[in-house]
Amino acid sequence: MAEHTVKAFDEDITRLRGLIAEMGGLAELSISEAMQALIKGDEELAKGVVARDKQLDALEAQVDALAIRTIALRAPMADDLREIIAALKIGGVVERIGDYAKNIAKRVGGIDRRGPFEPMTLLPAMADIAASMVHDVLTAFAARDPVLALEVIERDDKVDAFYDSIFRNLVSFMVENPATISTAAQLLFIARNLERIGDHATNVAEMVHFAALGTYPPDP
Amino acid sequence: MAEHTVKAFDEDITRLRGLIAEMGGLAELSISEAMQALIKGDEELAKGVVARDKQLDALEAQVDALAIRTIALRAPMADDLREIIAALKIGGVVERIGDYAKNIAKRVGGIDRRGPFEPMTLLPAMADIAASMVHDVLTAFAARDPVLALEVIERDDKVDAFYDSIFRNLVSFMVENPATISTAAQLLFIARNLERIGDHATNVAEMVHFAALGTYPPDP
Repeated sequence: MAEHTVKAFDEDITRLRGLIAEMGGLAELSISEAMQALIKGDEELAKGVVARDKQLDALEAQVDALAIRTIALRAPMADDLREIIAALKIGGVVERIGDYAKNIAKRVGGIDRRGPFEPMTLLPAMADIAASMVHDVLTAFAARDPVLALEVIERDDKVDAFYDSIFRNLVSFMVENPATISTAAQLLFIARNLERIGDHATNVAEMVHFAALGTYPPDP
Repeated sequence: MAEHTVKAFDEDITRLRGLIAEMGGLAELSISEAMQALIKGDEELAKGVVARDKQLDALEAQVDALAIRTIALRAPMADDLREIIAALKIGGVVERIGDYAKNIAKRVGGIDRRGPFEPMTLLPAMADIAASMVHDVLTAFAARDPVLALEVIERDDKVDAFYDSIFRNLVSFMVENPATISTAAQLLFIARNLERIGDHATNVAEMVHFAALGTYPPDP
């Protein structure tokens, strides 16, 4: 590429990374606020999380448009093209991570907070790990760090272990307390949403690995 | 583009469409076999669905590689570039639709089939609509048909209505029959997986609309 094209390309890719970082920050905030809303029964906070989803959709559309424009105008090759394609796919996944957070927030109104629910104490810990995966995988993308990406992939086992434990816990709780079934079902879905967030952060980590090295990490 | 480049580009895009059609066919088959496995309690059939997921992963990687190669070698502009980007994103979504079918298949072993479960009769009807959405949206992609894409988007309301009805149904069932809670929880997740398949088919429909017309359909 001519020098001015290289510079323009660098600016485009920097903006693309900036948009993805912004999306990641919003998604992370949504996870943490959705969980706070759940624990406190704060329906206003939950509504804010639901409203934020539109912002994520708009940012994803911006990522798509900028990626397509960059490819069309700069005709990048090899590594650069791979990086733009990765940004395009990562934008899509972060948007879906936001969807899961929205989904958690939407369930806040359906939770009956009377009575101590052991899963209620496990869910925030699970959410913290899932949110840290989202945070770290976007750091890995920004820093082109495949080692941190692999570390995120390993962390998903912890999220899965939480999920299994919460699932068993909630089912026994439902059997013993049929009056709580509706709330327990909501909590089951929330645990499942967190488990999916971990899976999606893992997908992003695989794309970061691909963008940095040109190969997908081996299946564990 | 020079004439030979145009021809090479057309061949690439035809192969790309062929790969997406192949992925769609496998995803549709997985939905239908997962539901058959569920209804009959056929764990061997369920295992086949789980195994098929590797094929979908491999096809998605082929779509990615071919799309990147086509962009790099042919430097397509405007409509053509938009179509390749759409194929890239649609490949990712169809792979996730396959994941939901795999997820349903994995739950087959955890279902206790004794006793009549009304949701068991609703789930196959819900699955048929979701599978028809996947089928039709890929037809819409192959035919560049934004009208059929819009029709698929409308059909998602039916899937959502089924989901709400099955959810209420299962929760009352659990309250009345605590012994069935574990099975009912599995069926809840299956209903949720089908609902997500409908959502993903809707996402693909939006991308088909975008590839064909350059705009996303208005929010309903």
